Amino acid sequence: MTRGVCLCYTRAMNNYNFSNRTTSLKPSAIREIFKYSADPAVIPFSAGNPSSSSFPVEAIADITAGILRDTPAAALQYGITEGYAPLREWVKADLALRLGIGRTDDDLIIVSGSQQGIDLTAKAFLNPGDTVICESPSFIGSLNAFRTYEANLVGIPLEDDGMEIAALEQACQENANAKIIYTIPNFQNPSGVTTSYAKRKAIYDIAVKYGLVIVEDNPYGELRFEGEDVPAIKTFDEAGIVIYCGSFSKTLSPGLRVGFVAANSEITQKITVLKQTNDVHTNVLAQMIAYEYLTKYDYSAHLSGLRALYKQQRDLIVSEAREHFPAEFSFAVPEGGLFLWVKCPDGFDADAFCRMAVAEHKVACVPGSAFSPSGEALSAIRLNYSTPTSEQIERGVRVLGGIL
Amino acid sequence: MTRGVCLCYTRAMNNYNFSNRTTSLKPSAIREIFKYSADPAVIPFSAGNPSSSSFPVEAIADITAGILRDTPAAALQYGITEGYAPLREWVKADLALRLGIGRTDDDLIIVSGSQQGIDLTAKAFLNPGDTVICESPSFIGSLNAFRTYEANLVGIPLEDDGMEIAALEQACQENANAKIIYTIPNFQNPSGVTTSYAKRKAIYDIAVKYGLVIVEDNPYGELRFEGEDVPAIKTFDEAGIVIYCGSFSKTLSPGLRVGFVAANSEITQKITVLKQTNDVHTNVLAQMIAYEYLTKYDYSAHLSGLRALYKQQRDLIVSEAREHFPAEFSFAVPEGGLFLWVKCPDGFDADAFCRMAVAEHKVACVPGSAFSPSGEALSAIRLNYSTPTSEQIERGVRVLGGIL
Repeated sequence: MTRGVCLCYTRAMNNYNFSNRTTSLKPSAIREIFKYSADPAVIPFSAGNPSSSSFPVEAIADITAGILRDTPAAALQYGITEGYAPLREWVKADLALRLGIGRTDDDLIIVSGSQQGIDLTAKAFLNPGDTVICESPSFIGSLNAFRTYEANLVGIPLEDDGMEIAALEQACQENANAKIIYTIPNFQNPSGVTTSYAKRKAIYDIAVKYGLVIVEDNPYGELRFEGEDVPAIKTFDEAGIVIYCGSFSKTLSPGLRVGFVAANSEITQKITVLKQTNDVHTNVLAQMIAYEYLTKYDYSAHLSGLRALYKQQRDLIVSEAREHFPAEFSFAVPEGGLFLWVKCPDGFDADAFCRMAVAEHKVACVPGSAFSPSGEALSAIRLNYSTPTSEQIERGVRVLGGIL
Repeated sequence: MTRGVCLCYTRAMNNYNFSNRTTSLKPSAIREIFKYSADPAVIPFSAGNPSSSSFPVEAIADITAGILRDTPAAALQYGITEGYAPLREWVKADLALRLGIGRTDDDLIIVSGSQQGIDLTAKAFLNPGDTVICESPSFIGSLNAFRTYEANLVGIPLEDDGMEIAALEQACQENANAKIIYTIPNFQNPSGVTTSYAKRKAIYDIAVKYGLVIVEDNPYGELRFEGEDVPAIKTFDEAGIVIYCGSFSKTLSPGLRVGFVAANSEITQKITVLKQTNDVHTNVLAQMIAYEYLTKYDYSAHLSGLRALYKQQRDLIVSEAREHFPAEFSFAVPEGGLFLWVKCPDGFDADAFCRMAVAEHKVACVPGSAFSPSGEALSAIRLNYSTPTSEQIERGVRVLGGIL
């Protein structure tokens, strides 16, 4: 074939020949809200940040000084794609011991935050048009990652104990090109829902039956401040179909960008090849900091402190919301994690409300539509209680209640 | 459509339904060589590492202590996808002042090493089957990144002053679906070739004529220890079609994973959206370390030191190779960068030679075929002179000469 000469580029081009995946990406409806949120005068219910006051700053400073004194070349030179070996081994052992995760055929790779684990898993599995079955609502970052691989997203209504199982099975039956079931089983973002043990089993059985893999995204599992832990889906993964994504972003520091993927070694090998061409390897100093912290400091006490802090914040936002929100704005009380999901009456325009709240009242929260797999409006609002201070929670909920 | 029930997953699955891009990835022929290279007894001509002795360790230790003392929350909390604002501004100003890069419509995003810049640019532009025109040989990491987006790679023979221009134009004519011209214009990896000013102009004009974008990958530009700098293609980018990828991996530290992409803002916006779903943002502490080093220490003196070191290593490997290699193994003397590219006689099996050299003589180097866009064998060997010590260079070249 011969290519015609194009004359349209002799001046500054404003129309690039982007890939289909890129042109189909819609600008985020909530970009404006996040833009406002950068203003320190705005009360940040919109973020998903862990509390900055929770970072073990002194420990990290001491650890970093030690690394740069004793093994600077290892920290500053290229590392291997699979990750810093001692950290990999520690995480594997920790998952096995504490959570019962890991079989003979499994392996683990360190990634640059669990977002990268989701992205590379999507890249490893999805052809354009393949279906990802996910909770509705679900985490916008993962939904958008799937969208960049031109996936078809099918949302399953989320009940108080997890996905509606009949709808899940129906979606598997109806979508011959379904490849992945994506779930955040603990304190889901945005809904705060924890999937029950029975439903975890049911989801797993359905995935096995229909030949799908499960991406089990668990960034909040360590942040349970009430109730009993529920075993991870990965713990009953005899078929080797569960890809477990974990993170130190919510428990240690998100700025370091350290997470991991535990899965059958055939899958982690593919992810490793894709990671090598993506960012070569995760920042080595950050991996060493995480390893030293996890092994030489009292991580368990640190987690207890975090849980106590977030419980306090949750208690506060719940009591303030009960006092100031009209009764038709309802919510379940989450047993862990970072989010309160407020369901609004039918017909309530949460998008318009959130835009107005931040623009006119300097209170930022995220409307439900941001988390909708189909993009349709959801009459709900997500409030994060880990980022704002107690004073901000009190003031912000009152302001929101006043407008509502 | 109804999906049939699959019974094959009731036991450990060893046959996943990976994406086309993943199944088509071939295992690297040189994996075995890199495996051997991890052995400290092996002389590492195979790497692309900067010299570990070059890292400004004390400065980085002081800087890091200061950051974790003065602004720990900023370093450890989530950052914005575009990158740490002071670093972005510094790099923009530096590119403008020193290299004449940057127009009104341009912007700059920080990435997790320039490998991520290449990956996300490929993701922004390439549909399966689209053509990337590149130098032959070229950098394996970029070629593999393009392959993960199912690109068709068309290699243009590399002459001593850059791509063969007639072949480049012919490739543009013959490939209607060509989208990207990929070039490493300075001290190319693996060939060490620097593209002349005339050829840079010609490549740019051809890209404009055929409506392609150019990915100008410049990790080694600061490492010129001889001759005159040649202006970047990006400096004459009136059409806004050049995507300039830079890195601090070779000049400061690769372990930190900090690079950048400078391009028309319409392109950087797409890359930003794709980066957000890929790793959210680059490690913040690493970005702050880079910024503090670049602005508060004598970066220019550091670069001079690096250049002096690599010139010394290059002089040594060149004199040793002249003394010990048979005359039919020829090479051009690079004026910068990290690599000596040894052309072997026709019919010489460089793959077998490199496998044997590492397995039997503990000297690791990389055969030309690793850098071949088509995957065909190239009768050449790449020797890196920045990673081995002087003593290793002397000993290694003698050993290789002895076998040759």
